[in-house]
Amino acid sequence: MRIDELETPVAMVDLARLEHNIARLQAYLDERGIANRPHIKTHKIPEIAHMQLAAGAVGVTCQKLGEAEIMAQAGVNNILITYNLLGTTRLERLVRLRRRAEVSVTADSVTVVRGLSAAMGVAGVVLEVLVECDTGGQRAGVQTPAAAAELARQISAAPGLRFGGLMTYPSGPNTDPFVRETKALLAADGIAVTRVSGGGSPRMWQAHECREVTEHRAGTYVYGDRHMLAVGAMTLDECALSVHCTVVSRPTAARGILDGGSKTFSSDLFNLDGYGLILEYPAARIYSFSEEHGHVDFGACPSAPEVGERVTVIPNHACVVSNLFNHVVGVRDGEVEVIWPVAARGMLT
Amino acid sequence: MRIDELETPVAMVDLARLEHNIARLQAYLDERGIANRPHIKTHKIPEIAHMQLAAGAVGVTCQKLGEAEIMAQAGVNNILITYNLLGTTRLERLVRLRRRAEVSVTADSVTVVRGLSAAMGVAGVVLEVLVECDTGGQRAGVQTPAAAAELARQISAAPGLRFGGLMTYPSGPNTDPFVRETKALLAADGIAVTRVSGGGSPRMWQAHECREVTEHRAGTYVYGDRHMLAVGAMTLDECALSVHCTVVSRPTAARGILDGGSKTFSSDLFNLDGYGLILEYPAARIYSFSEEHGHVDFGACPSAPEVGERVTVIPNHACVVSNLFNHVVGVRDGEVEVIWPVAARGMLT
Repeated sequence: MRIDELETPVAMVDLARLEHNIARLQAYLDERGIANRPHIKTHKIPEIAHMQLAAGAVGVTCQKLGEAEIMAQAGVNNILITYNLLGTTRLERLVRLRRRAEVSVTADSVTVVRGLSAAMGVAGVVLEVLVECDTGGQRAGVQTPAAAAELARQISAAPGLRFGGLMTYPSGPNTDPFVRETKALLAADGIAVTRVSGGGSPRMWQAHECREVTEHRAGTYVYGDRHMLAVGAMTLDECALSVHCTVVSRPTAARGILDGGSKTFSSDLFNLDGYGLILEYPAARIYSFSEEHGHVDFGACPSAPEVGERVTVIPNHACVVSNLFNHVVGVRDGEVEVIWPVAARGMLT
Repeated sequence: MRIDELETPVAMVDLARLEHNIARLQAYLDERGIANRPHIKTHKIPEIAHMQLAAGAVGVTCQKLGEAEIMAQAGVNNILITYNLLGTTRLERLVRLRRRAEVSVTADSVTVVRGLSAAMGVAGVVLEVLVECDTGGQRAGVQTPAAAAELARQISAAPGLRFGGLMTYPSGPNTDPFVRETKALLAADGIAVTRVSGGGSPRMWQAHECREVTEHRAGTYVYGDRHMLAVGAMTLDECALSVHCTVVSRPTAARGILDGGSKTFSSDLFNLDGYGLILEYPAARIYSFSEEHGHVDFGACPSAPEVGERVTVIPNHACVVSNLFNHVVGVRDGEVEVIWPVAARGMLT
C-alpha cells in the first residue's frame, strides 16, 4: 500500500530515518563509553524498543509503571522507571513487574523510599533505587548533594532496596559538580556510586561533557521534531515522524484548514512560531488549532494547496503526538511496511 | 470502591453534576424551542450520548467520521458530522454509515460536495448536506451569503444529496444577518432553509439571541472546565470532570510535582493563568507541564501538600483531557458507580 492511500490524519514513521537515528546515537554513546538507555515515552512501541536494544542499548527507560508493564510483556527485560512510584496498588504492580524483569526505579524523598521498601520487603524481592537529583532541570529531585547522600544512605539501609546510583534530568553543566560532591559525601560511608543516569535529547551530543554520567536516556531522538530542529540537535532529514493531513477547507485566499488539530498534534508550542512545519509549504504558518482543525496561513507561500491536497507536517513535539495516535505507520520508499499499535499509549498510571 | 482507592491520575465524572448539566441545557433549549444536538467530542462516550438523547436531544454531533461510527455502533441513530469529509475510503465508510443511521454532514466547497455526491449517487443513498458558513468564527465555512446560496444550489442539484440547511460555529452576533441574507437569495430559487445549526458552549445561554438558529450544538457543557468558568458560562459546582492526581515530589518549599502533565491534561492554555485549578489549593499555580509531571507553585498557599497527598484538578479544557484517558470513572457521593471506556477516543479519521 502506498502512503497516499492511507486516510488522514495519519502518523508515519520513515523507517530508514528511524534506523539511522537509533544507530547514530548508539555509535556516539558507544564511542564515549556511555551506556545507552533510550526513553520509550516518545514512541511507546515495543518493536522500536527492541530495535534500540538490538543496536546496543543496555535497557530502556519508562516514565510510568504502565509503560514498563507493556514493555515487559513484549520481552523487554531491563527497565528503569524514572519516576516516584507511590500508592499501595501501584507498588503491588511494581512487585509483580520486578519479579519478571530487571527493574530499577528512582526516588527523591523518604516517603517514596519507605513505600518502596515496605512493598519489596514484604514481597521478598530486591529493587534497585536511584536517587533523583535536581541538577538544574527544576522539576523533581533532591536539591543538594547533602540531601542526595542522605537519601542514598536511607536506601542502602532499607529492607528490600539496593542503592543504584544517581539520576538527573536533563544532564547539563551542573551535573558533574553535584555528582562529585555527592560521591565524596557517600565515600565516607563506604557507599559507592557506580551508576549515574543522565538524560535528554536536545543536548544528547554533549552527553560526554558530563564526565560523571555513565548512562544516557534520550527519547525524542528516534523520531525528531520541530523542537529538535530548533535547538540544532537534529536535521530535517533526520525527522522520522510526520503527520499526513488533508486540506479540508480553503475559506479565504490565505486561510487553509487541515484535518488535524490539538487532538492530533497537541498544543505544545515550545516557544516556536506556529504549531508545526508543513514540508510542502515551508512558508505556511499553522497559527492555531481547534480540536480537529489546523488553522493555516498560506499567505506567504508562492502558491497554496487546493481542497483535498495532502500535506506533510513535522510536529513541534513528537512525544505527545505519538501518544494521540492508536497506531503509527512505518514507511519505506513511500510504501507501508508495518503498522505499529502504540501499545503503551495512554498508560497514565 | 471509594474514589481514593483508584490509582492516579484518574479522570472522574461527578454523575450528579453531569445529569444536572444535561438537564439544564435541555430545559433552556426546550423553553426557547431550539433543538438540542450535543457534540459528543467532549465525552466520546456512548452512554453519555444516550443520556443526552433520553433528556430530549434530537440527535448528536460528531466532528469525525470515526466518532460517528462508534456512536452508531452504540445505537445512536441521528448524527450530524460537522466536517468536510474527503477521500475515497472515507466516503465509502460514510456510505456504509448512512445506510445504518440518519446521518447528515456539512460542506463548504464544491470539491467536498462533488465527492459526497459521487459516493452517494453510486451507492443509491441520499445524504443531507448542510452548508458550513463562517459567521465570525474564522475557521472553515463559506465567507458570504452569496457563496452559501451558491453552494446550497449545487447541493440541491447534486445526485444523492439533499440540501439540509446551514451550519455555523460558533453562532454569534453575525449569524442572523448572514442566515437571513442567504435565505433571501435562496428564496428566489424556491429553496427553503429549514434547519440552521448553531454551536458552542461558551455562549450557549445566549443561543436564543440567534433568532434564525433552529438547533444548537454544545459539547463542553456536559463536563465544564476552567475555560467555561472563565467565560462565566458555568460555575465551579457544575464542573463534572476532574482529574485526581498525587503529589509525587516536593523538591522545594514552594514547588510541588503532580503525577499528571501534558499527556494527562494536554497543554491547552486558553489564555488562562496556569494549566488547571487545584481545588484543595486554589492559590496554587500549575505553571508548567512536562509530559508526565505537573509543575506547581504552592508558594501562595497557607499550607502545601505532602508527598503522597491526592489533589483534585479542574482542567483548562475538558475535551482534550477526556481524549487522553482510556476510561473515565463515574462517581456518586465519593463511590465509583461506573467505569466508562472513552470509546471514541483517538478516532482521528
